[in-house]
Amino acid sequence: MKSLENIRFVLVGTTHPGNIGAAARAMKTMGLTKLHLVEPLHYPNAEATARASGADDVLASAVVHQDLVSAITGCHQVYGMSARLRHLPISVVDPRQAVARIQQQADDSQVAILFGREHSGLSNEELDKCQHLINIPANPEYSSLNLAAAVQVFAYELKMSFAPSIEVGRVGEEREAINAEDLEHLYQHFEQSLTEIGFLDPENPKNLMRRLKRLFNRADLDKNELQILHGILRSAENNKGEQS
Amino acid sequence: MKSLENIRFVLVGTTHPGNIGAAARAMKTMGLTKLHLVEPLHYPNAEATARASGADDVLASAVVHQDLVSAITGCHQVYGMSARLRHLPISVVDPRQAVARIQQQADDSQVAILFGREHSGLSNEELDKCQHLINIPANPEYSSLNLAAAVQVFAYELKMSFAPSIEVGRVGEEREAINAEDLEHLYQHFEQSLTEIGFLDPENPKNLMRRLKRLFNRADLDKNELQILHGILRSAENNKGEQS
Repeated sequence: MKSLENIRFVLVGTTHPGNIGAAARAMKTMGLTKLHLVEPLHYPNAEATARASGADDVLASAVVHQDLVSAITGCHQVYGMSARLRHLPISVVDPRQAVARIQQQADDSQVAILFGREHSGLSNEELDKCQHLINIPANPEYSSLNLAAAVQVFAYELKMSFAPSIEVGRVGEEREAINAEDLEHLYQHFEQSLTEIGFLDPENPKNLMRRLKRLFNRADLDKNELQILHGILRSAENNKGEQS
Repeated sequence: MKSLENIRFVLVGTTHPGNIGAAARAMKTMGLTKLHLVEPLHYPNAEATARASGADDVLASAVVHQDLVSAITGCHQVYGMSARLRHLPISVVDPRQAVARIQQQADDSQVAILFGREHSGLSNEELDKCQHLINIPANPEYSSLNLAAAVQVFAYELKMSFAPSIEVGRVGEEREAINAEDLEHLYQHFEQSLTEIGFLDPENPKNLMRRLKRLFNRADLDKNELQILHGILRSAENNKGEQS
């Protein structure tokens, strides 16, 4: 990916409208313009506008969503900003590593960066939508970056890598990107097939689907791999099983 | 220089006390504690304290000076943060280059980073005290980073170089590592199962196994995930398939 155009910042459940304005300003200083808001507590709001300062155009074009799914529709990669290193089997990268990964994406990929609520961050269900967590290395005794400060740091890292550099070469074979709906569809197929072949007990599903989601969120699947997995599941469902 | 202990942030002529508090917070999140204030317009001040949030210790130990000279006494290097690229015969570096230079200093060096007034920055006399200017690369059409945002970005760069990441990787819940033989065994199981359920044609295997290996090599599986995959394959083999 060579342009910042396809990178959206998604603020989830922001409590203080001033932080939305400050985030818009932080984004614009680094040349980012795509702001999405999921269930902001107060918005539109005069304080948001005041804090946006000269970035009112970014604020004016912000898209407000009723839920996170609608905010990340069509996105090929979803990153979640996380202050706490949670006990989750999900890959954690620092901002610099995240930007390096984003640059390896195809030019027409859409990428979402999620920023959670001021006090509670992102919920577990929201984290389940993320392929990677981004952790800003911070003072372990005081890691509470203000929301706009976290936006500023990540926007700065993007700017440092995207704007000064000339051409960042993509490596490896052609991989056709998939998006969030494709993954959701794969997980539904897994759930249905594993129930059918008796591996998943709907009465007692335990954590199986969550574990599988984390595994495949991490794996950064391409289109071809997605089709292989669907094919395996179909064959498993249809297997007549000569032995037992 | 190996420690952040000898790096001081000097806010010169700050107008809004809230920005002093926000700067203290930004510093503390990155493990910086040495704050110096030159002729702040309003200080001490309740808004500064409020915006400092949990960084009131940094604020409480801030040293207030009547002039810049006293604030940089004893410093071996002085850097000035500058939003505008001025026509001055002075070297301009970006934050990353500045940090690299600072790290080359002797361990007992003292370094000052100057942050100017919100609207007018540093005066020419103040710039004359600096060996280097630091310019944060920004959107040429909107380069006005908030004072605390500039403090946050530079503090972050220092933190990234001096005390880098957490153990980046996956954190949290116990993940039991697997080894190359475990993976080999998984791939053999895939090959056998996929043949059995009719998805893999041994006469015409194409690239299927290679693709699956790439996918799961990339996924960094743990023991638990390995067992889930074996379990799915066993269930697929044994599936009696009520439908076809």
